This record gives sequence, structure tokens and C-alpha cells, in this order.
Amino acid sequence: MPTIQDIENAYQRIRPFIHRTPVLTNASLNESSGAELFFKCENFQKAGSFKIRGATNTVLQLTQKELDRGIATASSGNHGAALSMAVRNRGGKTKVVMPNNTPKIKVDNVERNGGKIIWCEPAQKSRELVLKELLAETGAVLVHPYNDDRIIAGQGTAALELLEDYPDLDTIVSPVSGGGLLSGTLCSSKEMKKGIIVYGAEPAEADDAYRSLELGEIQVNETTNTICDGLRAQIGSVTFPIIKEKVDGIITITENEIINSMRMIWERMKIIVEPSSTITLAAILKRKELFKGQKVGLILSGGNVDLTKLPF
Amino acid sequence: MPTIQDIENAYQRIRPFIHRTPVLTNASLNESSGAELFFKCENFQKAGSFKIRGATNTVLQLTQKELDRGIATASSGNHGAALSMAVRNRGGKTKVVMPNNTPKIKVDNVERNGGKIIWCEPAQKSRELVLKELLAETGAVLVHPYNDDRIIAGQGTAALELLEDYPDLDTIVSPVSGGGLLSGTLCSSKEMKKGIIVYGAEPAEADDAYRSLELGEIQVNETTNTICDGLRAQIGSVTFPIIKEKVDGIITITENEIINSMRMIWERMKIIVEPSSTITLAAILKRKELFKGQKVGLILSGGNVDLTKLPF
Repeated sequence: MPTIQDIENAYQRIRPFIHRTPVLTNASLNESSGAELFFKCENFQKAGSFKIRGATNTVLQLTQKELDRGIATASSGNHGAALSMAVRNRGGKTKVVMPNNTPKIKVDNVERNGGKIIWCEPAQKSRELVLKELLAETGAVLVHPYNDDRIIAGQGTAALELLEDYPDLDTIVSPVSGGGLLSGTLCSSKEMKKGIIVYGAEPAEADDAYRSLELGEIQVNETTNTICDGLRAQIGSVTFPIIKEKVDGIITITENEIINSMRMIWERMKIIVEPSSTITLAAILKRKELFKGQKVGLILSGGNVDLTKLPF
Repeated sequence: MPTIQDIENAYQRIRPFIHRTPVLTNASLNESSGAELFFKCENFQKAGSFKIRGATNTVLQLTQKELDRGIATASSGNHGAALSMAVRNRGGKTKVVMPNNTPKIKVDNVERNGGKIIWCEPAQKSRELVLKELLAETGAVLVHPYNDDRIIAGQGTAALELLEDYPDLDTIVSPVSGGGLLSGTLCSSKEMKKGIIVYGAEPAEADDAYRSLELGEIQVNETTNTICDGLRAQIGSVTFPIIKEKVDGIITITENEIINSMRMIWERMKIIVEPSSTITLAAILKRKELFKGQKVGLILSGGNVDLTKLPF
């Protein structure tokens, strides 16, 4: 489990390569929610999501020998693009195993950053199998999208910046998929501020983290039929224990609630965020009693949306 | 014609009621354009566009007696919403004559700010007739969307802020419709910085300003068949002389060029802007030779887009 020192080291390591993203507020959404909201805009981040934080933190710690073997990963898109960018910054090459139903903008984003795509079926089993074959064939070094302390420490720097900018937050809400962002957020924020509350927000259609927490051990996603293409991954063996120990709760959200919150952010804040990000606002609107009158940080995780396939 | 002192006075008058909007940059669009671009984000402004600047500057100068008579205007939407907000801030009421093909988000925006809508046909003649009848019947005070020195001075504060933030800009590009924003931009920027170049960007499908400038006197729009619902108005008798005296040129843009530039801003900057705003980037991409290597300010005029009717 990364310490706060690991996360501060990660921040010093990656800061020349990332944006310090802005924190936006919106009077109209404050009114709708009954809370004071602070949106950490990772949609404006390099390669369009927070994933560049963990990817850069990991790649900068690889040896030249490892880099020369080539880098590989499996990713629904944002980690693949971020990793490709981080590896290219060091002069290396990346292969990304990607489900064949990935939105085109995420495919383009990997390719624009120099990554090579290896297709798989949109199921965890196919993803794992194709990746395993790729690693065996090429001898490439795996950089896992979330199940790695270096990745978790990198993702934790988003909440670190947020709490540096707004130290008086009462609560933070983060999306949860494989758990890299949520566990990183927990490792930084719970150390930086005693008593801070942290919730995960998860699609009801891919609620493995919620059920894993309820039962105390890792459960498998039964469906991943959610518009949140960034939240279909399986909670990890490294991330889950951190979440289990530290999180204050996971709030599950229906597809309609996600789409409604997406529309509210687009129309009122005039910013483009992925459905996977807007789930944080949906959680606050669904459980207003938990957030009433509080200062709440929301991590808007990314902005890579296929504009030709919007849900409204 | 407003002096720079008028514009500075306007800025002091309106600043408690408006946002000082951020100026964003984007490495990828710099690369695509060959220039260094500075986007003045009036899409993040109160009521979703720069229009609150001129409306507030005017409404704050009305007497209580004028306010009690009620306020009226004709508007494709953004001025109507901004005026409604500015009038409501003083406790008054606004009636807005609006074309019956106005995007729903702009209709909602007027109503949310307390304005009452009076429908007209989507043609200049119907707009003028319905407004004239309304003024005769109600005795309301007209606040014209652009043909008024108080409005022009207010709109000029956007460029004033932009040049305060980035005094070394070489060029500014502003959309042009009725001419309030462009003439205000000319009045502030040409006084603040000798030698600065200012272009207007106008849809080829509503090119009255371009033709008026070519012929030296006001020409009428022959079509207004453009996706830029904010750029269908007729250049004004107060705004045109300012533009004629000061502007360095008007660049006309096709519908496809507007849609392409809109998509580039949405996908790369992750912000929501109206087609009427993205025309400024389209102008730079179309006439790269005019802007090569320069520092260019673009006024992104607004962000009120109907998300159910996107052109991609």
C-alpha cells in the first residue's frame, strides 16, 4: 500500500510531465445538490484523463533494459493512451490489448500517442488471455492499469493536488472501476486530512466493488453493460484491500442517473466529461443526505467521449 | 463610439455581476494552426455567453422609472437570457421577442432567468414588427442586443480582460453578427495596444458584415442559413461605422469549416462552445498565413448548445 511519502515522491517525479488541472465550481450545481462542489478536472489532463499520472510514475521507474523489451498493457482506452504517451516520452514502444467495442476516440487516442492496438473480445477472460499470449510471445514488460503500487501512488496525486488547493474539503467522491483512482485517493486524502470522508461511485451494471465490499472478498462483475466504458474493469487484488480498509462506502448508480448527471455537467459547466466521471455527481444527487451542506471534492476522471455516440 | 474610458467604466460597473472568465491554451491546436492561441472562454460566463457584459452595463444605467415600465428586446437567445438576468438582478421584468426556431436550451435559458418569451418568425422583418407592436402596447423600454453604445462598451470588456491577462497578443479574432462584440473588441483593444490586428469571423451563409465592408455601406443578409444561431442578426447602424473604421478584415467561413472547428475544440479542449464561437478557430485554420507564428486571442463567445441537436 503506497504511503503518503510514496505519493509525494510520485508527484515530484511526474509534475514536469502532467498538467496541474484546475478545480472548477458551479453555482447552479451547488444549488441542485445542496452541497458545495469542487470539481477536479482531469478531463483537461494530458491524454484526456488522470491515467497519465500513474502511467508516468511507473514508466519513469522502469530501467532502460525493461524499456527496451517493449511495454504492454490491457486497457479500455485511457490507460492505454496515457501509457503510450509516457513510454514514448522515454523513447519506448507500447502494445495495448483493447476490447473491440472501445469508443473510436479512445482508439485514436492510443494510436495518436504511438501505441499499437491488439484487439480482444469485450470480456475479462478474452482480455486476460490475449494479454498473456502477447507477453509470452514478445517478452514485453506489463504495466497493469491499476493493480500496481506505482500506479496507485500516481493516481493518488490527483487528490493530493485537490486537497492542496482546497484543504477544507469534508468529503471526496471518486469513480471506482479497477480501483486505482479510488485506492490512490484514499491513500493520499486519508493521510493528508484526518476525518475526511471518501466515497466510491460505481455503475449498478458493473458493481463488483460494491458487492466485494459487502461480502468482504473480491466478487466478479456479472455484467458490464454500462455506458461508463471506463468503469467496466474488475476490482484488483492490490487495490481492493486498500479500499476495504479505508473507504467510507460505495454508492451504486443506474444508467439513467449517470446520463442525467452527464447532461447536467455538460449543460451547466460547459465542459466535456466522460460518463465514467459524471457518476460522481450522480452519487451526490442520489444520496443528498450524505453530503448536505458539506464541501465535496469530485474527481472528474476524464474527457474522452465519442461525440458521434452521445446518450442524448 | 465608446471610448476606452467608457469601457473601463463599464468594467468597474459590471465586475461584481460577471465572471472574470479564464483564458485557456491548447498545445495540440497550437500545432494544428501554426500560431499560439489564447481562448477567452466566455462560454463559462454567467448565463453562458459574453452577452451579460453589455446587458448588465446597460441595465445598471437605467433609471428606476425606466425599469418600472418593463424591459423588452429581440434576441436569438443569449442576449435575451443575459438581459433577463441583469434586469432580474435589479428586481425588474423582461420580455424577449425570439424566433420560433431558437434552440431549446436558449429558450430555457431565458425562462430560467425570469424572461417572458414572445415568439416571432425567424426573419428580420417579423422580429422587428413583433418587437414594435410589443413596445407600442406595453410602453416597455427597449434594450437593443447590439446597436447601443452602452452594450458595445460592455462587450468591449471581454477583450479588455484578455489583453490585461496577455498584453503581448498580436491579433484578436471575434465572431461578428450584429457587431456588438466585434465593435466593442475594436474599441478596447485598438486603444489598449497600438498596432494590434483585429479580425471578424462571419458565416458565409450570413455574410452581411463582410459585404457591407466591401461596399462601404450596410448590406442586408440574403440568407441566414447557418448553424451559428448566434450569428444570424443584421449588422447595426451604430456598430457598422466602428467596424468600418477600425477592423483589419472579416473572414467568411463555410458551414463545414465551422462544424470541423467545433469538433476540434470539443475533442481537444474538452469544453462546450457554440458553433458561433468556434468560427474564430475556423478563421485561423482557413487563413493560416495571416496568423503564422503570432500570439492570437480568440473570443469564444458562448456555450449554449442544444445537446440533442449536434452536427456530428
